[in-house]
Amino acid sequence: MASESSTNNSITSTHTLPNNSDEEVKVMVPPLNFAMVAPGVYRSGHPNRKNFPFLKKLKLKSIMCLSSDEFNEELSQFVKDQNIQIFHYKIDGNKEPFIEIEQKEISNALVKVLDIRNHPVLIHCNKGKHRIGCLVGCLRKLQKWSLTSIFHEYRRFAVTKVLADQEFIEIFSEHVPYNPDFKPDWL
Amino acid sequence: MASESSTNNSITSTHTLPNNSDEEVKVMVPPLNFAMVAPGVYRSGHPNRKNFPFLKKLKLKSIMCLSSDEFNEELSQFVKDQNIQIFHYKIDGNKEPFIEIEQKEISNALVKVLDIRNHPVLIHCNKGKHRIGCLVGCLRKLQKWSLTSIFHEYRRFAVTKVLADQEFIEIFSEHVPYNPDFKPDWL
Repeated sequence: MASESSTNNSITSTHTLPNNSDEEVKVMVPPLNFAMVAPGVYRSGHPNRKNFPFLKKLKLKSIMCLSSDEFNEELSQFVKDQNIQIFHYKIDGNKEPFIEIEQKEISNALVKVLDIRNHPVLIHCNKGKHRIGCLVGCLRKLQKWSLTSIFHEYRRFAVTKVLADQEFIEIFSEHVPYNPDFKPDWL
Repeated sequence: MASESSTNNSITSTHTLPNNSDEEVKVMVPPLNFAMVAPGVYRSGHPNRKNFPFLKKLKLKSIMCLSSDEFNEELSQFVKDQNIQIFHYKIDGNKEPFIEIEQKEISNALVKVLDIRNHPVLIHCNKGKHRIGCLVGCLRKLQKWSLTSIFHEYRRFAVTKVLADQEFIEIFSEHVPYNPDFKPDWL
């Protein structure tokens, strides 16, 4: 239909979507520090209500949360309505000199991330910087990225507080027993 | 096979891949400022020889280059060997007060990026910061992202020289006549 494709293809000054159903969203707001990690894997900070229309478009099968905070009621209801599976790892970020993420926990989390049956998955912590940065850094090691490029990506999000996390990523050597039958083809 | 999956699942201290065929690459080096934009679309700076093993894993169908520089011989040979289609837009970046990217050129480029027949596509300029940042910013407008999140993403890569590019993205209103039959489902 000519009229519909013309609406879809234009950028209007108000950014209005076509006038139908629940698609009428003027502006999409991705969660803080949202980005794509690899096919089927997204990263971000903690999603909240204003991100829901955006999240719907991702058609998520699961959300992984690395945070000791509980989901609030709105988010709990949203994931229930959308039939999204939750993986919640209640871990605190690296904080020198006393708090260090357990390698085993990152390994457990990676097993879920590296299972295409959970894709698309959104992995998030509170700010989308440090804990997720550690997880993604360890994922990049499995992909055999150079440490230089791993750290460059890490710092793009974290900006500050890099040393403890970078060391965590560099030292990480835990076995990651993902299921080879369901691993993504980019690994 | 237990032995194979055990090799694949471990991070070894030398990062060595299994001893077969041309897969024996110790370290994968992504191009400068490599990242994923959306399913089927990657961004980066200008790829070079040390990135070739990494690029092979992406199974690219096309590469889009926004740069007035010619491909060097090695890269030309690589894309020929890999049967990768090239889209070359010889544009210079925004440079106040006299040089400004033409909106029409970004629109033409977006038509190619928004055609799944060209996916997976790597879009790159020289550093993977400014010209690609403009293109991705305009793509985000088509996805109806908030300007705040568009600029946040832009700055994650560009770090400096943001104003002319941000204004370009904000003002961009060119019609983008992509083919609705082959548009990605995330648009």
